[in-house]
Amino acid sequence: MSEVGELMQRMGRDARAAAAVLAQSDGATRNRALRAAAAALRARCAQLLEANAADMAAARAAGIGAALLDRLRLDERRVEAIACSLEDIAALPDPLGGIAADWTRPNGLRIQRVRVPLGVVGIIYESRPNVTADAGAICLKSGNAAILRGGSESLRSNAAIHACLLEGLKEAGLPPACIQLVPTGDRAAVGEMLGNMREFIDVLVPRGGRSLVARVRAEARVPVIGHLEGNCHVYVDRDADADMACAVVVNSKLRRTGVCGAAETLLIDRAAPPALVRAVVKALLDAGCEVRADDALRELLGDERLKVASEEDWRTEYLDAIIAARLVDGVDGAIEHIARYGSAHTESIVTANAAAAERFLARVDSAIVLHNASTQFADGGEFGMGAEIGISTDRFHARGPVGVEQLTSYKYVLRGAGQVRPG
Amino acid sequence: MSEVGELMQRMGRDARAAAAVLAQSDGATRNRALRAAAAALRARCAQLLEANAADMAAARAAGIGAALLDRLRLDERRVEAIACSLEDIAALPDPLGGIAADWTRPNGLRIQRVRVPLGVVGIIYESRPNVTADAGAICLKSGNAAILRGGSESLRSNAAIHACLLEGLKEAGLPPACIQLVPTGDRAAVGEMLGNMREFIDVLVPRGGRSLVARVRAEARVPVIGHLEGNCHVYVDRDADADMACAVVVNSKLRRTGVCGAAETLLIDRAAPPALVRAVVKALLDAGCEVRADDALRELLGDERLKVASEEDWRTEYLDAIIAARLVDGVDGAIEHIARYGSAHTESIVTANAAAAERFLARVDSAIVLHNASTQFADGGEFGMGAEIGISTDRFHARGPVGVEQLTSYKYVLRGAGQVRPG
Repeated sequence: MSEVGELMQRMGRDARAAAAVLAQSDGATRNRALRAAAAALRARCAQLLEANAADMAAARAAGIGAALLDRLRLDERRVEAIACSLEDIAALPDPLGGIAADWTRPNGLRIQRVRVPLGVVGIIYESRPNVTADAGAICLKSGNAAILRGGSESLRSNAAIHACLLEGLKEAGLPPACIQLVPTGDRAAVGEMLGNMREFIDVLVPRGGRSLVARVRAEARVPVIGHLEGNCHVYVDRDADADMACAVVVNSKLRRTGVCGAAETLLIDRAAPPALVRAVVKALLDAGCEVRADDALRELLGDERLKVASEEDWRTEYLDAIIAARLVDGVDGAIEHIARYGSAHTESIVTANAAAAERFLARVDSAIVLHNASTQFADGGEFGMGAEIGISTDRFHARGPVGVEQLTSYKYVLRGAGQVRPG
Repeated sequence: MSEVGELMQRMGRDARAAAAVLAQSDGATRNRALRAAAAALRARCAQLLEANAADMAAARAAGIGAALLDRLRLDERRVEAIACSLEDIAALPDPLGGIAADWTRPNGLRIQRVRVPLGVVGIIYESRPNVTADAGAICLKSGNAAILRGGSESLRSNAAIHACLLEGLKEAGLPPACIQLVPTGDRAAVGEMLGNMREFIDVLVPRGGRSLVARVRAEARVPVIGHLEGNCHVYVDRDADADMACAVVVNSKLRRTGVCGAAETLLIDRAAPPALVRAVVKALLDAGCEVRADDALRELLGDERLKVASEEDWRTEYLDAIIAARLVDGVDGAIEHIARYGSAHTESIVTANAAAAERFLARVDSAIVLHNASTQFADGGEFGMGAEIGISTDRFHARGPVGVEQLTSYKYVLRGAGQVRPG
């Protein structure tokens, strides 16, 4: 076995042993570790920034682009935000031990479904060092051991943050293997996590760009939680209030363009009053958004600022101030377009017509469907679930925001008085 | 692409289209299909038995063993049982459309988590023709399209049962592709389901012997629900009532020896009164069970009927009237043995000591843990969940009995009044 293979097997065994300890730990102990880690992050801020400066210098020398450099960069404000995020996770309700269901059978057997951790969670991510803290903390909160594999360009920053997490674990008397960081940038480590650690990893969570997520989903031999893309839609119905439609569309697209819940295609009812159509498109254009429209919409509006949409645009997640736009035949036309081109992430309808809204909500088969609200609410925090590790577009195990509760499993506990099964 | 490859792709596309129809169907329609299928089974009983007789003749000619022949065989009583089972599934509560959670955020957004089907379920099974009806019906009840691939030796019987299911679908106005049967015995079809139908199959359920399940779990490129083995334990504590211990142990082992919830290893507290130890082991021996004991137990009892247990016995799922037995150091010794050798399926403790019981229930990490009750309660019907498609020893998505509710996913439905996300 290769050196990296041996390293990863050892990390897997250690994670499995730590998971057994975590499964029996109480919530207060896990919260103590999180709060102590936050304190350590604040106390060691200078060392953290030093480690990050070394990562930044190496990245610059390697000619890495500005966007990636910004994701990699830490400053005092960002370190403080990471520390606060750990404290927020500590403040969440304990997802473990709760009784999700409780019933008694006619023979007197009492059955309870009790929440337990999943076990060991592997996280594969790219350049943002804050994921080291966030993902480690979400796993710890939910009683799962974590194996973190960050981008090689942020290795020093990740190690400095990980040292703070270890300090928290130590203070709470928990084993260091509760949160492990893969200590090498060797890409073979990712291959090991995907293919050779079925015995040790219960679920993998990829956090990063499309190519990373696609690789993990294609190659992983263990379950994966995550989404490949968020090609989200807003549909403006004939019965939409114009002001509300403008506000929801502009917010859905432009509040942040880089998040997975950002709208990428605008669908407008062909039967909508032209003034409504014009108002919505103008609001986007005036806010600085590029609008790529189909022929019918361009003809209707005759606005020279409109660009031409191609078939490819309906499938594109821009993650930028660009939106595809077209007229559709009412709510059923919108449902059909979304079924054909959508990625089952998040879609919203704006309408004052309750029947149209209910039809859309029932028939659009996405993780999150909204009526009269921005697609940018697709976020665990906005759901009131606290920190999330991602949004799942899968249907298996977890769909939509994946918070601490979605990282749990359950067991059945049956209490009897000597019952035996007849027959 | 091979002929089988093309066939399976076509079946996958048809299943996906049918799943979209099922997702919008109401429970009454799906129940109507199930009841009409039951009626068709009764009406066509003679044809069914004829098809089965042809399968039996071919199997006999191929020199197939008696156990398999019995599993393959249908008679009027068995056909009636299949029909009744369809009606029982129709009578279960509708697992779809229910609101699993409902809350309102401070900004007024109302969030509901609504149950929806998983999509398309692939079932790979062996020689029992009743699985065709049961598995198809459980999928239909939960709004999932099913692709059924039974054993080639039961192809004629399965096709005859499938024809009745199609009659039920037709009567209810549902597309025939809601339940499809792979019409060929070509083993390549299984390979297609495992490896080339990710786009079309949301989850695979293997139902059969260990080698089938192992192959599916090793090769599947889609999620799998199922269990590899049920190496279940009963632990008799020092504080167990002797009569209860004997009853629970004998029932756990011998009520049916071929089910996955049958006990395979008996653990007895080293500190238990010798009379209790003797009573439990004698009860098994007198009931005709072979007992393979460790040295300490054999020395304590000096009973010549005891066989010698080897290391291998602790890992063996006998599915027969054989049990491995040993003394352990109290409840912690039992927990340790189970962690080392168990398959995380079902384990029971017999004791009058509440603290020992709670320790066992909390620390044994199995899908089902019981106090003072037989392991043979490991069954969806006994849980009150109705028909089950299997028992899962996985931690992801579904653990323990997998009934109609476990074959569902959910979506989030948000209703607002024009909310946009700040910041």
